[in-house]
Amino acid sequence: MQIRTDLAMESREFLNKKSGVSSYIFQHGKIEEIHVHVETKEAAKILMKDCGKYITLTYPNLLYQETGERKELVRILAETIRHMIPAEGDILIIGLGNRHITADALGSRVLDHLMVTRHMSEIAMPGLKGKLRSVCAVAPGVLGITGIETAEMVHGIVEKIHPSAVIAIDALAARECSRICSTIQITDTGIRPGSGVGNHRQGLNRETLGVPVIAIGVPMVVYASVIARDALAMMMKDIGMNEDEHQSAIDVLIRRVADDGMGDLVVTPREVDDLVGRVGRIIADGINKALHERLTDEEIAILSNDHLV
Amino acid sequence: MQIRTDLAMESREFLNKKSGVSSYIFQHGKIEEIHVHVETKEAAKILMKDCGKYITLTYPNLLYQETGERKELVRILAETIRHMIPAEGDILIIGLGNRHITADALGSRVLDHLMVTRHMSEIAMPGLKGKLRSVCAVAPGVLGITGIETAEMVHGIVEKIHPSAVIAIDALAARECSRICSTIQITDTGIRPGSGVGNHRQGLNRETLGVPVIAIGVPMVVYASVIARDALAMMMKDIGMNEDEHQSAIDVLIRRVADDGMGDLVVTPREVDDLVGRVGRIIADGINKALHERLTDEEIAILSNDHLV
Amino acid sequence: MQIRTDLAMESREFLNKKSGVSSYIFQHGKIEEIHVHVETKEAAKILMKDCGKYITLTYPNLLYQETGERKELVRILAETIRHMIPAEGDILIIGLGNRHITADALGSRVLDHLMVTRHMSEIAMPGLKGKLRSVCAVAPGVLGITGIETAEMVHGIVEKIHPSAVIAIDALAARECSRICSTIQITDTGIRPGSGVGNHRQGLNRETLGVPVIAIGVPMVVYASVIARDALAMMMKDIGMNEDEHQSAIDVLIRRVADDGMGDLVVTPREVDDLVGRVGRIIADGINKALHERLTDEEIAILSNDHLV
Amino acid sequence: MQIRTDLAMESREFLNKKSGVSSYIFQHGKIEEIHVHVETKEAAKILMKDCGKYITLTYPNLLYQETGERKELVRILAETIRHMIPAEGDILIIGLGNRHITADALGSRVLDHLMVTRHMSEIAMPGLKGKLRSVCAVAPGVLGITGIETAEMVHGIVEKIHPSAVIAIDALAARECSRICSTIQITDTGIRPGSGVGNHRQGLNRETLGVPVIAIGVPMVVYASVIARDALAMMMKDIGMNEDEHQSAIDVLIRRVADDGMGDLVVTPREVDDLVGRVGRIIADGINKALHERLTDEEIAILSNDHLV
Repeated sequence: MQIRTDLAMESREFLNKKSGVSSYIFQHGKIEEIHVHVETKEAAKILMKDCGKYITLTYPNLLYQETGERKELVRILAETIRHMIPAEGDILIIGLGNRHITADALGSRVLDHLMVTRHMSEIAMPGLKGKLRSVCAVAPGVLGITGIETAEMVHGIVEKIHPSAVIAIDALAARECSRICSTIQITDTGIRPGSGVGNHRQGLNRETLGVPVIAIGVPMVVYASVIARDALAMMMKDIGMNEDEHQSAIDVLIRRVADDGMGDLVVTPREVDDLVGRVGRIIADGINKALHERLTDEEIAILSNDHLV
Repeated sequence: MQIRTDLAMESREFLNKKSGVSSYIFQHGKIEEIHVHVETKEAAKILMKDCGKYITLTYPNLLYQETGERKELVRILAETIRHMIPAEGDILIIGLGNRHITADALGSRVLDHLMVTRHMSEIAMPGLKGKLRSVCAVAPGVLGITGIETAEMVHGIVEKIHPSAVIAIDALAARECSRICSTIQITDTGIRPGSGVGNHRQGLNRETLGVPVIAIGVPMVVYASVIARDALAMMMKDIGMNEDEHQSAIDVLIRRVADDGMGDLVVTPREVDDLVGRVGRIIADGINKALHERLTDEEIAILSNDHLV
Repeated sequence: MQIRTDLAMESREFLNKKSGVSSYIFQHGKIEEIHVHVETKEAAKILMKDCGKYITLTYPNLLYQETGERKELVRILAETIRHMIPAEGDILIIGLGNRHITADALGSRVLDHLMVTRHMSEIAMPGLKGKLRSVCAVAPGVLGITGIETAEMVHGIVEKIHPSAVIAIDALAARECSRICSTIQITDTGIRPGSGVGNHRQGLNRETLGVPVIAIGVPMVVYASVIARDALAMMMKDIGMNEDEHQSAIDVLIRRVADDGMGDLVVTPREVDDLVGRVGRIIADGINKALHERLTDEEIAILSNDHLV
Repeated sequence: MQIRTDLAMESREFLNKKSGVSSYIFQHGKIEEIHVHVETKEAAKILMKDCGKYITLTYPNLLYQETGERKELVRILAETIRHMIPAEGDILIIGLGNRHITADALGSRVLDHLMVTRHMSEIAMPGLKGKLRSVCAVAPGVLGITGIETAEMVHGIVEKIHPSAVIAIDALAARECSRICSTIQITDTGIRPGSGVGNHRQGLNRETLGVPVIAIGVPMVVYASVIARDALAMMMKDIGMNEDEHQSAIDVLIRRVADDGMGDLVVTPREVDDLVGRVGRIIADGINKALHERLTDEEIAILSNDHLV
């Protein structure tokens, strides 16, 4: 029974003693930083994750986050990003998803707060000389609205822009409700086909784009079917039951939880509209700081997109 | 184990042979019209619903609704509303909930498409003379944003306006995922304290407002805890299990489905942002037609709020 | 030739040597604070302004505002408001206008960032005890959408809430383009009928509501007809021309500038969507600080509406 | 004194007897269809318009448009577009401008209602076989937000998609207030550098993109400086005045109307938020009909983007 999750740290739980995957954990106060390295093709196949590094930051509930905790989270995020990208060259940031669907809006929410500088490079800005890295940002929209595969569009833009790396932001699906908006995953493997709330048909990665692709994602939903299957499997095991004998009860449960005949049911916090705004801003702050180490918070605030969107 | 639902038709399923409740069903093509009358205080207490009429319209998936089906749904809705309100006098429509939270935005979405006429009454509109009923509409906002109880604010407005009836629109919680956005409930009992996605602290009904209050609601979410408890109870019964013996498995299941420590988890279709727009427009059409029988669709379209919001 | 402006300081320019009006100016760095007192009924009639105090704060372009300037502006605004309201009792804040029309959206933009506390009063909030003043806030909408006069609705709410004072926020029309979004007017005379971008049909003031009404307004537009008539009058005078002899040229000019047959033309900065967001947040900060002197900026940020709207 | 307008029909008024430009007018009830052909490089230089066809449709006030008028306008628009594009091949539609600035939001408003089909081509849709033309659509955003020139991004996409033609939608600046939202210009010359409300730095046309580029634009603003200079020139001429002698009066007028030190002042109807929604939907209807002649209005409604955005 295969369980879908876009978080490597959740796959890891099934695999913790297998070969081909290594993981370690750092603790920064209430923030936990988990590294998972998928090292072999065999492990990649079993986990349904590409080979590479997956770093997750988990932290307490954003609705009650204190100022100090937030600053620390942004700092760790900025450092993690900085270690994954080349030290020089243009950075292209891609905000994936559909701005009009809350659970899929993370990408465009991040773009709303980014500091974009590529078009400023030639303008004299006294005091900022030598401090600006060239950054550009695009929200390519979703296939259902544009008729164009995201990967196709991004590829076209990359060929014109020639960035040194791409950072792609996307809403993820997780396996545990407690991860929703309380986990940020950063990976150097890019975006995998079939992943994300919007279910990307093609991947965005070093192979397809020709440059390093860092993906930053946050779980926004858990598919109800995932919870149902997962919980049932546990329960069956716990009570020593044979699944086959109780198929009617199982069918009732799965149908109730996971299938309303109207498309995918998801489990999400009632406050998701609020949460996506908060976590989107945290990621934007992290990226802005990662790319512009020498600017103050106030300089970044003045130069960011906030006032144009 | 008490299960929360705002739909009387779902409570009915537990009570179908009890006294104090009567129900009957009409079928209009694919649209089902279910009447539930809660007749005695005893029945009201058991169902946790006030005495009165509850009419639910259920219909196939809105995402694939055909034009003919939509027209028929609007027609039946308009007739149902018309039978519940007084034939004469001003109508005050209240759009409950928070416009910025998708699952709670139904009320303000309906207001966006209403035809409001109270301020037009004295203006000469050639061709509309004698066809306009006086309608006004307010979105009072939610307690967390305004600091004012909805019931308190509506009471103050009712005392100034003296409407002959109030129609209140609200997002509901249901017990079955398949009801989400595919059921409209119309009741003459008003809004009950503790009900709705936003959990109203006080009721809006004939007792509190002094005039008839018709409530129109659509399920937008199912609380994950409701599904979990409901499904578990069924399964336990089905397999002849004793709940007490397997408490650890039950705890795991409930915690996964229902509690992330971040507030209420809800189950909702991924397309909820789309669905709330569609059903909001259907309800607005139904109300507009109920109140303005003698206007054509085009006259209503020109006079409605669509272009002002 | 009567020129419409909602700013008392602009009327004053015609009246500076007349009796019944006194005015003085304070300078705080780049921020100018102008007090105009309309003291007699005769002066009120000529200026088309009610008797009372009008304080305007003017400041350099918000698009290039520095952090220090912003803090100082918020501080002066908070102090001005604090001097106009009673020291104790509930405060009701009214956000006037239409959220969906940029030039009329100031009121609802301010509400988006307010700190509303009236519903918190009974909840134990450790650390905030004795620091919270009871504040509630409503956006009553506009007559064209609700069918209800704003004054009527506010009156109904005031009778339920019994606030010690009302603060009403509104978008204004000015006479000089340079005032747009760069002037805040605070007055103890409330809102005058016929004023504001939305042209209120009835006033909101101590007479109609029975409690002190402080109005805070920002010019968002200049009516094109105002500019045309004003400029023409000056030019005619400058060149010693007789208006009557050149009526055809005047007609062409006025028609071009002021009348497209499609309703009122207004002059506004292209960046008005950006500017209304900035000035709305400044006013919210000023009100929050005026009402909650003993809270830190961070405490206010956590308790404000930002995350709920 | 050079007057900026993006409408060829307004330039024409200065040129009506010059060589190199031909124009003719068709009348359809209240809708006027004006063709301007700029035929020589000399004429192009004087008019500051590229060589090619410019067709403008003008029509009465959208706020009071009747259903029949609207249908006729959509029909003429659809036919005009159909004559300008190749009969076969993919069509790429570009929505220019900034969704968050009302006066610049036309492009993204049109995209909200388009029918996009490129990704549907391989899916079996019973009943639509052979009726769907491949259409895709992108809103590339603006340079200030993305850091990428629109022309650069569109070029990258065109090289991937290989459309047979591009249709670009943009908000225009006009010279007469009466044109705002009451004129649609369709041209085969594409988008000119420096044109539009957002002031494109590079052009989008057959030379830069390698395929035919049809531009559809609607005036959303008149620059206040344009009105002032235009009106003054007329008045000076009318009264036989020498401009040089009255420079101070002229300066006062221009400064008042056109310069607030805060960036460009524009003249626009107060109802512009409403108008851009209406005209955006009309253009989307026209494009949908132009590209899908064999579909009914209802089939187009079901397949369009309305429910996804």
